[in-house]
Amino acid sequence: MRIARIAHSEGFAYAALGDADGQEVALEIAEQPFVKPTFSGRKWPLADVRLLAPVLPTKVVCIGKNYADHAREMGGEPPADPVIFIKPSTSVIGPNAAIKLPADSSRVDFEAELAVVIGQPCKDVPAEKASSVIFGYTVGNDVTARDQQKADGQWTRGKSHDTFCPLGPWVETQLDASDLAIKTELDGEVKQDSRTSLLLHDVPKLIEWVTRVMTLLPGDVILTGTPAGVGPMADGQTVSVTVEGIGTLTNPVVAK
Amino acid sequence: MRIARIAHSEGFAYAALGDADGQEVALEIAEQPFVKPTFSGRKWPLADVRLLAPVLPTKVVCIGKNYADHAREMGGEPPADPVIFIKPSTSVIGPNAAIKLPADSSRVDFEAELAVVIGQPCKDVPAEKASSVIFGYTVGNDVTARDQQKADGQWTRGKSHDTFCPLGPWVETQLDASDLAIKTELDGEVKQDSRTSLLLHDVPKLIEWVTRVMTLLPGDVILTGTPAGVGPMADGQTVSVTVEGIGTLTNPVVAK
Repeated sequence: MRIARIAHSEGFAYAALGDADGQEVALEIAEQPFVKPTFSGRKWPLADVRLLAPVLPTKVVCIGKNYADHAREMGGEPPADPVIFIKPSTSVIGPNAAIKLPADSSRVDFEAELAVVIGQPCKDVPAEKASSVIFGYTVGNDVTARDQQKADGQWTRGKSHDTFCPLGPWVETQLDASDLAIKTELDGEVKQDSRTSLLLHDVPKLIEWVTRVMTLLPGDVILTGTPAGVGPMADGQTVSVTVEGIGTLTNPVVAK
Repeated sequence: MRIARIAHSEGFAYAALGDADGQEVALEIAEQPFVKPTFSGRKWPLADVRLLAPVLPTKVVCIGKNYADHAREMGGEPPADPVIFIKPSTSVIGPNAAIKLPADSSRVDFEAELAVVIGQPCKDVPAEKASSVIFGYTVGNDVTARDQQKADGQWTRGKSHDTFCPLGPWVETQLDASDLAIKTELDGEVKQDSRTSLLLHDVPKLIEWVTRVMTLLPGDVILTGTPAGVGPMADGQTVSVTVEGIGTLTNPVVAK
């Protein structure tokens, strides 16, 4: 099932996306989607609603250098264990919302990522049980002020600006994420083109690693890392990240 | 005013702490404390309630190496600009709650810190207006798995374990924080003993720096950095951090 958060004519809601009467529709979920959803009975043509970030994470836990070719383009070898950092909830935006370039950065990069959405509170989850805590998958863009990342050594500032965590367009709850095409296009030109089968640490391993440290809550997101091909975005450009089986997350880029 | 969050005989609430009838009491706040609080009229002797973490931050933004003597004991010079990292909301605990030593760390350190509590949503706050967004101050302990911090290079994993962000015992809303004694005692032995006047980047500068990057929300916390004297804690010990004018935050330490 595809789960979205939508802005409709009367407010905001989670919704399931489907087909009805020959058109794509958004079926409003009465409460939240993490247990078997209750539907309110209201629906809208998909074209009449605005898609928001599909979840409201309390935190976005990100994995650095989890594709070998990206680790090498950053000037190093991939680390033996996953390296984590956190993007705050305030950095999250939805599809078609603008990525705002901070005035104090001279280089802001796209980073295409498979995003894992957590479905229940969990801690110390062994890899072999990871699938039980996954709500689904969406597409993420780990937007990065590369100059600030390098200047600080610590990655948090360059990764945490408001608008630096586009997520969407929806969560796909039925998906084998082990070998999906992942691609970035900037103004239609392909910049990143890889497969999730090349993740150095796969999704179950990442869930085990992260939950060894911290409790994850429903809606929390793990960004699994980006493949090679990262590069800068400029005012007026449009960036699209596509993960096979999920969809395409598109965001315009604007000077702040 | 001292603002706390309390567990009382019938539930949880924010409360103002004061004196009534010759004893310390907790006066229940009906809703939340960030605007002029409404009191429910219920009160309890302070001895009959349990103090929780005084706020529920969506994120805790921490400043690295913000005292020169601590930067040097870590083997380097202090950075010219503040370096930030984030502790997740799931790491927060209150006074007297146990700091749990992770099984996969061989060295977990205390770090005494002055904690700034934000009172309203804010972004791009100049230093000269920083006081307008401060709700108050509490005491923090930036608990750190030192071995994991060093192994990763990135500090997030070693700083983000559940229970690694004790806050409390309450928020003091009327305080000049520019020159306060800050102290750590481990089983009664003084380990850190400094003053907030030695912060390399003071509180207004930190608020300007952090809000240049991200929106802060009511209850969000900035941990301002730790002075020299950090060191390890062991199962069965008790750590107390005191900031003059606020109070003492005490936590037992237990093996997980």
